[in-house]
Amino acid sequence: MSGIFHVVGLGPGDPELMTVKAARVIAASPVVAFFAKRGRTGHARTIAADYIDGSVEELRFEYPFTTEVALDDPRYRAEIVAFYDACAAALAERLAAGRDAVLLCEGDPFFYGSSMYIFDRLRPSFRSEVIAGVSAMSGCWTCAGTPIAHGDDVLTVLPGTLDEEGLTTRLRGADAAVIMKIGRNLPKIRAALARAGLAERAIYVERGTMAGERILPVMELDDRPAPYFSIVLVPGRQRAR
Amino acid sequence: MSGIFHVVGLGPGDPELMTVKAARVIAASPVVAFFAKRGRTGHARTIAADYIDGSVEELRFEYPFTTEVALDDPRYRAEIVAFYDACAAALAERLAAGRDAVLLCEGDPFFYGSSMYIFDRLRPSFRSEVIAGVSAMSGCWTCAGTPIAHGDDVLTVLPGTLDEEGLTTRLRGADAAVIMKIGRNLPKIRAALARAGLAERAIYVERGTMAGERILPVMELDDRPAPYFSIVLVPGRQRAR
Repeated sequence: MSGIFHVVGLGPGDPELMTVKAARVIAASPVVAFFAKRGRTGHARTIAADYIDGSVEELRFEYPFTTEVALDDPRYRAEIVAFYDACAAALAERLAAGRDAVLLCEGDPFFYGSSMYIFDRLRPSFRSEVIAGVSAMSGCWTCAGTPIAHGDDVLTVLPGTLDEEGLTTRLRGADAAVIMKIGRNLPKIRAALARAGLAERAIYVERGTMAGERILPVMELDDRPAPYFSIVLVPGRQRAR
Repeated sequence: MSGIFHVVGLGPGDPELMTVKAARVIAASPVVAFFAKRGRTGHARTIAADYIDGSVEELRFEYPFTTEVALDDPRYRAEIVAFYDACAAALAERLAAGRDAVLLCEGDPFFYGSSMYIFDRLRPSFRSEVIAGVSAMSGCWTCAGTPIAHGDDVLTVLPGTLDEEGLTTRLRGADAAVIMKIGRNLPKIRAALARAGLAERAIYVERGTMAGERILPVMELDDRPAPYFSIVLVPGRQRAR
């Protein structure tokens, strides 16, 4: 009998925002795998720490890149494919030996999560299950005290990597918006928000639900690159009732 | 000292998809409030049942409408405002007496939740906190085994109540989509998906994560009205890695 593979959503960062099911499944698993950047503990590992017993086997999957390789470099695709293959092989070895294994995933696994690439590789051969989590964006609009959408609002989730034209067009068709992947795109995002008439409503959230949380209007930001855990929120039509 | 008011997200339906924090806060609260339709237990009350002790005070807020009043009827707005005022007054009475209170909310409170209207009324006078939850849509794409968005996908969340033109335009600008409020709008939604070239990819999910869950391609559906707990998912660009 092979083991069962779980991909477990951990929520936006506050460990208490894990689901009851995530906590139960992690605590019961003899093998716990997670991604980490070079030289870091791994954010997912940190969120789940209270549920990982010292006696379990931990698989630390270290991303093969630092920032030196551009995402459109052909080496990127080749290396990331080899990396995911190796992660899946390490997990498959444990599963084939009859041991259950979990892969920790920040936020909600099927919402922009890279754990889905491991899930795709293992699903054909092993009993596999994904556990939904609170998304990072839900954590952010909640800690900002800002309902994102009401009634018949259209909500659009956009990567800040789109060009200014693409951002502007989509923002114009939305009542509410979430912009992710801020980084160096802030000046462009701000220009698009202004062209779509949404700059006044836009809120910047950094490290939502975590230590060092920072929330302020986008208009008050300077143009410095934003860190990884940052997001821009445009709350929908605010209709009092 | 007044009590603390918590609006608690319960997730998509499976009680184990509540967060650890939601479970803790509900179990500790001497007053538990929830919305319910006439003659029903209340879906939120059912999800949270395991954490509600028999000795706590329960406030059952029964919606004043059956299906007889149309949403654009001026009586609707007047009655719903009076209803929310009465709910807030009942909670304020307990909070002012120094008792903590929770309001249960399906899904994620700040994502199309009507609990935000109660939160708006109580926030000025009482210490108030919202607890994020797993959204219904996350529960649905997870139980369908379908990652919704990858990489630089644009995701748009649409109400099925938009007209066919509005639906089609927004679907054309999206890589991935979620359509809510299906009900009697299914023929129109299907026409818009076809015009946007997305019909083949669209998946229908009914009662996701709950008993009676039903998942099938939109193309295989007939035109009968869909029940309340139904959603249409269009997964984003599927890029293998």
